[in-house]
Amino acid sequence: MSSKYRNFRNSVPWLILFWEAVFIILFYFFFSVAGLIAPDFLDPAFQDVSHMMIFGLGFFLSFLKRYGLSSIGLNLLIIALAVQWSVLIEGFSCSGIIFSSSFFSYSIIKATVSVTAVVISFAAILGKANPVQLVVMTIVEIAAFRLNRWISKMYLQITDLASMMHVHLFGAYFGLAVSASFPVLQPGFEKSASTPTSCLLSVLGTLFLWVFWPSFNSVLAVERKNNIIYSTYFALAVSAVTAFALSVLTTKDGKLSMAHIHRATLAGGVTVSCAAGSIQYPWIAMILGLLASVVPILGSHFLQRSLPPAIKIHDVSGVHFTFGLPAVLGALAHIILYI
Amino acid sequence: MSSKYRNFRNSVPWLILFWEAVFIILFYFFFSVAGLIAPDFLDPAFQDVSHMMIFGLGFFLSFLKRYGLSSIGLNLLIIALAVQWSVLIEGFSCSGIIFSSSFFSYSIIKATVSVTAVVISFAAILGKANPVQLVVMTIVEIAAFRLNRWISKMYLQITDLASMMHVHLFGAYFGLAVSASFPVLQPGFEKSASTPTSCLLSVLGTLFLWVFWPSFNSVLAVERKNNIIYSTYFALAVSAVTAFALSVLTTKDGKLSMAHIHRATLAGGVTVSCAAGSIQYPWIAMILGLLASVVPILGSHFLQRSLPPAIKIHDVSGVHFTFGLPAVLGALAHIILYI
Amino acid sequence: MSSKYRNFRNSVPWLILFWEAVFIILFYFFFSVAGLIAPDFLDPAFQDVSHMMIFGLGFFLSFLKRYGLSSIGLNLLIIALAVQWSVLIEGFSCSGIIFSSSFFSYSIIKATVSVTAVVISFAAILGKANPVQLVVMTIVEIAAFRLNRWISKMYLQITDLASMMHVHLFGAYFGLAVSASFPVLQPGFEKSASTPTSCLLSVLGTLFLWVFWPSFNSVLAVERKNNIIYSTYFALAVSAVTAFALSVLTTKDGKLSMAHIHRATLAGGVTVSCAAGSIQYPWIAMILGLLASVVPILGSHFLQRSLPPAIKIHDVSGVHFTFGLPAVLGALAHIILYI
Repeated sequence: MSSKYRNFRNSVPWLILFWEAVFIILFYFFFSVAGLIAPDFLDPAFQDVSHMMIFGLGFFLSFLKRYGLSSIGLNLLIIALAVQWSVLIEGFSCSGIIFSSSFFSYSIIKATVSVTAVVISFAAILGKANPVQLVVMTIVEIAAFRLNRWISKMYLQITDLASMMHVHLFGAYFGLAVSASFPVLQPGFEKSASTPTSCLLSVLGTLFLWVFWPSFNSVLAVERKNNIIYSTYFALAVSAVTAFALSVLTTKDGKLSMAHIHRATLAGGVTVSCAAGSIQYPWIAMILGLLASVVPILGSHFLQRSLPPAIKIHDVSGVHFTFGLPAVLGALAHIILYI
Repeated sequence: MSSKYRNFRNSVPWLILFWEAVFIILFYFFFSVAGLIAPDFLDPAFQDVSHMMIFGLGFFLSFLKRYGLSSIGLNLLIIALAVQWSVLIEGFSCSGIIFSSSFFSYSIIKATVSVTAVVISFAAILGKANPVQLVVMTIVEIAAFRLNRWISKMYLQITDLASMMHVHLFGAYFGLAVSASFPVLQPGFEKSASTPTSCLLSVLGTLFLWVFWPSFNSVLAVERKNNIIYSTYFALAVSAVTAFALSVLTTKDGKLSMAHIHRATLAGGVTVSCAAGSIQYPWIAMILGLLASVVPILGSHFLQRSLPPAIKIHDVSGVHFTFGLPAVLGALAHIILYI
Repeated sequence: MSSKYRNFRNSVPWLILFWEAVFIILFYFFFSVAGLIAPDFLDPAFQDVSHMMIFGLGFFLSFLKRYGLSSIGLNLLIIALAVQWSVLIEGFSCSGIIFSSSFFSYSIIKATVSVTAVVISFAAILGKANPVQLVVMTIVEIAAFRLNRWISKMYLQITDLASMMHVHLFGAYFGLAVSASFPVLQPGFEKSASTPTSCLLSVLGTLFLWVFWPSFNSVLAVERKNNIIYSTYFALAVSAVTAFALSVLTTKDGKLSMAHIHRATLAGGVTVSCAAGSIQYPWIAMILGLLASVVPILGSHFLQRSLPPAIKIHDVSGVHFTFGLPAVLGALAHIILYI
């Protein structure tokens, strides 16, 4: 095992460097047109998306106390690879292989938002997959999400913006599908006590979500940006309040779990993200936030009671309850509100 | 006691959920007018205010080492509740009960800034009040602050902007007044050694203050925004430098206390906040920053030496010296500079 | 030694307060012209520079585990002093001693960027210099950097923007020159195990770099801002990916070192910073990012193997490999690309 791991260790860096070389060569051939990036409006929300993805979602990974900081490191690797690949894929599909000044920063922001899917899927297989599998998953998933968006646009008549906002849904169920091919981990795994560092990261993650979800949800919208920002803001507030009440009700000693609040806030943001375009009034966002926060907390509560063998797919970090079901809820709300 | 606590534990979540339901119903009745939020200019400073409130002020609470992260969790609950209530109150008072497109994002930013008062008051009663009392205080204080602003505008001819900037003053003395009704905690309470986490939070809090105070102070200004930003920036720099010198002078072993620097930077920002409108030159801001940073450090230095029974109101986190007196200093400076 | 240290402790605060008084007096005499700061465009990138300097570069100092948070405190002191002095120096040189409304926020941003040099130099002498020496170095270095920029502009025909971007180069070699006058520390110094706090700070530092390098590199540019932002973004992504591969290859147990990734990301940003003006296509930025990330990792790898007495200048935090050589690389790339 030790020598096998040693061999494996030697293969990982070369695989990564190989992909990096491929990316640079592709960039060289396809992005070497003068005036590539038009001098258009500089959107400060571009940074907020990075911020959101890395802090808000990345710190979600620290729930699994056994991994903590090293999983954040791996997360960074995946994001750094995925961003380059996503920009390439977006460029290819945007206007054929030859494109010149038509590749605006709007496309780069779309490419950046797409990376979210990989981060969410990574959370579902955390601690199961090795770095080689993660790199392969990253490459496949970014392409699959682009294909999914193309199908949504062509056959389901879904607008580009709406298909982008399915990124949470896609990421969650792609991750769960990948997770099904891995063996189920032994039970008693999630019962490990939380460390001060994992608590701190949950707190920081929640705070960053609070600040950057509104930007994340509104960055791709071309109209009613303010409406989306305030909808997200109110939904997050209601999610946090509801999470507080439910967390005290469901934990045994009535203590507040910051992990619950982090998850509930994530779920609130995901739900509003999918329904943002059709929310007219703050109270709709607030009710969605309330419903969304119920899902991950009760989900993890009953998951702990149900026996692990009973469910086929073991969901390592509760991705199903934190991203999957809230995204379904948001998509349903979007349909209902649109009618 | 244990069974009493168990009963109490059961009542907290329901109280919170009750208020959340009330908020949603009020939003439903009063904010269901189409085109509520006008598609006006999207101010990125809105996020900075959230950032500032949660990181800069919230991490102030981690001074009390016994509470640390759990107090930040409770702080989030209070902010999430207060934001919703504050937007409602602001909406009621803004243009009567029936208002339509007149509720701009400017009002939402004002509502967000108002929440600062609750955070400061919370710091004054940290560790004394239970969650039920905190929720009640939040509801009462937001309404009281709105009333206070209305009185300031009607009878004292204070502009809306200036009355908003009294938020630190109001929060500090409201908190101290509430604090007076609680029993004094036993002495020897603040002597507990600082933990690495509390140090780290002090550092992060100071750094975030550094970055977001300028936005916080200028977000509501309609003119001379740049002037306020640079005034705050210079005042913070002088506060930090002075705090460094005073911290080394007052601590027994001559070590630098990050908590001192965090408090002094807060005090510098508070003072400039109250006087910002009438500061013409950087050197005035710098002198205010110097004076402000002296208050909390010497305050906490002499507070530790004075006997706790001697003062009626025991100030848990030094709110009086960090927010109260610096705000008074700023208000005095505003009057002097205005003449 | 103890009594000597006690005397020394007493002198530090007074030195700091003396300089603070000098600054306020200079501000009073030279910056007391009405309408000093013109009501021009409010650049949100101003905050990003502060953010970047304090978080991205400041957390670099936590590599030396023995210092950690206290070095960040000292870093804050230096930044707070340097910012004031830098604004004064920039003001003097900008338009003579008497200037009125010509001092725009552009100059204040330049002054803020200049402070970076001091932070980098501080990293080179970390743990060797006492606070008095640090304060003196801050005062001298800011003036020397301004002189250096003036010489570059006058005699080398380098544009103001390009001379600003030599701030990393100047800071690194100024720091190493100062470092040469201190005795070499005992070997075995850097082998201390990393603590959870130092790991967390490396992670946070890397994430903040990720978010704020693009702003830092583009803040002073007047044209092609978007191009510089995306160049920096791609260079950082490639640096992080390469750093991951190299870190696994060079560490003994094949574990990922977050410190490596933090350093490599810094190096990538520094290189692009110096060459940003002449990068036309993303692939050039990507190759520069790849080359830049090789320098600090292989540098620190071989530095550990070489005997400390062999090199005259002991580079405490690897400033030479993280800032010096990458800046030289960037400057060379700038010249090659420009031709």
